[in-house]
Amino acid sequence: MKIALAQLNYCIGDFEGNTNKMIKSALDAKGADLVVFSELSVCGYFPSDCLEYADFIEKCQQALGQIAVKCAEVPLLVGCPVLVETDANGERRLANAAVYLYKGERKVFAKARIGDNALCDERKYFKSSSDDGILELDGIRMAITIGDDLCNWAEDPLLIENRLDRMLNLHPNLVINLAASPFDYTMPLKRCNLLRKTVLKHEIPLLFVNQVGAQTHLIFDGGSMAYASNGHVDYALPFFSEAVEIIDTESLYFRRTDTDRLVVPDKLALIHDALVLGVRDYFHKMNFRKAIIGLSGGLDSALVTYIAARAIGVENVRVLLLPSQFSTDHSVSDAVALAENLHVPYDTIAIKPLFDSFSSALKPVFGDRPFDVTEENLQARIRGILLMAVSNKFGNILLNTSNKSEAAVGYGTLYGDMCGGLSVIGDVYKSEAYALARYINREEEIIPWHTIEKAPSAELRPDQKDSDSLPDYDVLDKILYQYIECARSCEQIVARGFERAVVERAVRMVNRNEFKRQQVAPILRVSPRAFGNERVMPVVAK
Amino acid sequence: MKIALAQLNYCIGDFEGNTNKMIKSALDAKGADLVVFSELSVCGYFPSDCLEYADFIEKCQQALGQIAVKCAEVPLLVGCPVLVETDANGERRLANAAVYLYKGERKVFAKARIGDNALCDERKYFKSSSDDGILELDGIRMAITIGDDLCNWAEDPLLIENRLDRMLNLHPNLVINLAASPFDYTMPLKRCNLLRKTVLKHEIPLLFVNQVGAQTHLIFDGGSMAYASNGHVDYALPFFSEAVEIIDTESLYFRRTDTDRLVVPDKLALIHDALVLGVRDYFHKMNFRKAIIGLSGGLDSALVTYIAARAIGVENVRVLLLPSQFSTDHSVSDAVALAENLHVPYDTIAIKPLFDSFSSALKPVFGDRPFDVTEENLQARIRGILLMAVSNKFGNILLNTSNKSEAAVGYGTLYGDMCGGLSVIGDVYKSEAYALARYINREEEIIPWHTIEKAPSAELRPDQKDSDSLPDYDVLDKILYQYIECARSCEQIVARGFERAVVERAVRMVNRNEFKRQQVAPILRVSPRAFGNERVMPVVAK
Repeated sequence: MKIALAQLNYCIGDFEGNTNKMIKSALDAKGADLVVFSELSVCGYFPSDCLEYADFIEKCQQALGQIAVKCAEVPLLVGCPVLVETDANGERRLANAAVYLYKGERKVFAKARIGDNALCDERKYFKSSSDDGILELDGIRMAITIGDDLCNWAEDPLLIENRLDRMLNLHPNLVINLAASPFDYTMPLKRCNLLRKTVLKHEIPLLFVNQVGAQTHLIFDGGSMAYASNGHVDYALPFFSEAVEIIDTESLYFRRTDTDRLVVPDKLALIHDALVLGVRDYFHKMNFRKAIIGLSGGLDSALVTYIAARAIGVENVRVLLLPSQFSTDHSVSDAVALAENLHVPYDTIAIKPLFDSFSSALKPVFGDRPFDVTEENLQARIRGILLMAVSNKFGNILLNTSNKSEAAVGYGTLYGDMCGGLSVIGDVYKSEAYALARYINREEEIIPWHTIEKAPSAELRPDQKDSDSLPDYDVLDKILYQYIECARSCEQIVARGFERAVVERAVRMVNRNEFKRQQVAPILRVSPRAFGNERVMPVVAK
Repeated sequence: MKIALAQLNYCIGDFEGNTNKMIKSALDAKGADLVVFSELSVCGYFPSDCLEYADFIEKCQQALGQIAVKCAEVPLLVGCPVLVETDANGERRLANAAVYLYKGERKVFAKARIGDNALCDERKYFKSSSDDGILELDGIRMAITIGDDLCNWAEDPLLIENRLDRMLNLHPNLVINLAASPFDYTMPLKRCNLLRKTVLKHEIPLLFVNQVGAQTHLIFDGGSMAYASNGHVDYALPFFSEAVEIIDTESLYFRRTDTDRLVVPDKLALIHDALVLGVRDYFHKMNFRKAIIGLSGGLDSALVTYIAARAIGVENVRVLLLPSQFSTDHSVSDAVALAENLHVPYDTIAIKPLFDSFSSALKPVFGDRPFDVTEENLQARIRGILLMAVSNKFGNILLNTSNKSEAAVGYGTLYGDMCGGLSVIGDVYKSEAYALARYINREEEIIPWHTIEKAPSAELRPDQKDSDSLPDYDVLDKILYQYIECARSCEQIVARGFERAVVERAVRMVNRNEFKRQQVAPILRVSPRAFGNERVMPVVAK
């Protein structure tokens, strides 16, 4: 039997676009006996509160109907929210379903394990299904599962137990999983191992079809796979791009080769590709074309400019150089070098005259009070205004350049350098940003080496260095990782060999700056714990 | 038997403060045979991801131990997260518990119905308990329940069924509920009716102890109650303030009076008191003292200034008047009149010189392009910078003055008038803001009548009126209410008698401006559906 795995990039709520794309893929998959799409493919994953609107659900059903008509001759498995009747009293509940469509026939397979992660709160909208279903085609009995249905739900973490265990009495001989599994740099490998364990436990081949593409802050990496019954990956679709591949189920029982075909790129390559896709989809799906970035000569803005150029084309990127009286010469020359390396057009506006105007406007209120953080923030905010003005006048979307270390400790100015419609590297620690820059420069100098090698500075007062007010990023980032990603306490972090005073200061800065993080743009998620709706902390607390 | 209902205002994670407050209340409640606190009282509700930190849970246990020692002679019921052993294999799981403490004795009663609302995602941290427990004291068998345990969990909405039904075989003759029930203007009445139905179903008296005080955006209104077995409220604690009241359980079986003692204030009074408490607690719990507001002469900033003065004292509020070349004379005179009515000090900075500086700085980039929304936003952003500069220099926290109608349709400038640490009236529609202003003026003119009666305008270009680009607020707000609070589709709203073109335009504006709402300060929640984490919409979508 030939099954097409359709790994496509959907836009949430774009029923026309999604439907056309699915129909085209189905009709192009010549010779396939079944085409499998990913979870909630008709509407895109994850639509959140759109699922509370009756007309949204209605449009999903219309899309499903249209696909069924246009592809009547091709058996399909489509992801779609479906209202199903509950046993009790005929009340209808929303299910996260895989719908089988063929020549007017229609079977609904509903998800059992409704996702309970903080990224996509499925429990808010969907009811879990206890009806397990088998789709039998050409003598193959397929266990239809969706997303987390194949996650471990055993009490004992050492035991793998999931929906499939419950379905064994139905005698499946192929497992299909329609998924939309959000990316982080640990996920491709983690997912592969989890699925392999399930395959090995029962020695049943498995087809995994994942969504690809970014949905605001969440990135889906694709990487769909077909596992042979011995646990090897026999077909591996690409990461971060659309692909449709027809696989032959025969080979999954009698293995074609000895080698596993899955090659998971290393962490930096994954983060790089994820960020490029994240920026590209943000622009394309929002119907934006052009970006603007404030270029300081430092690492972060250089990285974001490079990523933007890769994502939407250098012809759609422009940058502003906004030197102040505290900017060093090399800031300007490094920024110019980057713009020239990438062939990005730049304008320069010196902010001193504006700073002076504000100083005199504020003089009657400020009196003779000395220069302090007010004036530092003022410079950052003047830059924010200028960038937003050019953004408004020419329609270029401002990209935010804050990194995760800065966001964590609040080293940034609200309404200043924290402006922007999308935070590109807000989930990348500063030390990872350096590594990423070196990765980008692996063949030729794109980001000026001087930018990578000089000491980081905000340049908001004379001779300022980040290290004046922050621990070295090498140390800081390790502490932040322990505190944020691992949720370890100060005591536990100190016990791992860090200096108590540094740990306590870093943790205090993270806690005290929650209010700043509540006002930032969506952050492209690449780590297992990004700021945003995944890490929910009270602003007001001790 | 005498039971003290302790309705207190906790600060999340302030173990010392919370503990001292609880100990004092317990020791002051002379003659009480039991003191009942609210849900998660030792740590404050709702601590979110703090619950994932082992040291936070450890500090909760230390606080519990300290209370037990200091109040050993007083029987207590305290809300606290507790690790309990599960049957299976000794693994420990976190329970949202009521802990009975008396002379070294300790009993844990865990919550069964772990809250599933979007405001406080308890499912992320807590496991549900199926152990129902009775606390027997002086012959009274108390069914101990927590928060949503008394919410209806029947499939059939007409049937009231909750944890108590399951506990009837334990023969309780008093129900106790430790709660932290977030306020919205419908909640006091809704909660009262729900609890009354439960009382009437079984004719068992009920004590409801609620948290009071604001936790960032969430406000808890208190309003604790004791229901007699016939469903009447026999004791009603105040809304929006701390109170400890000792009730006599005798009277709950043999009613004291014929009248119900619960008086629910009307919607405007509730919203008014909630907002004042919300601002007060934001400042007190964050250890902030002073506020600053940009005063335009319009309704919203006048309302916020009044609320701030009520909340933290007029001596801690200052305002800036920031007229532009498009400001009318009455803007300035209305703003001055308000400042004088409230005795709030004000400074005036004309923004034209700054606007001119930006215009010349941008001239080389803008060329001769005409005045457009760029220049409108520029004015708003110059104001934002000035307010933040004074905020930074003097330590006054900037309060945001956007209303819910503006936030909904995106009628506001990011990093301009959308600046601020807390959005005070961001959950109040413009038409409700008018009603609130009239309520405030019910005895004397506080907000100048001219501010209330003139046509609203952003004054960012000559003769601008809100009605140039928006439907009348009377109509707009009704459409927004249907779309946001009721989640109705365009079709359904049109069917209720609104003009199709207006409905479609309003809905389009709401959808298109999701990105702006993702970057605003926490909004004090007073309606059943506020913007923020309660309404979760994808930014990128069609």
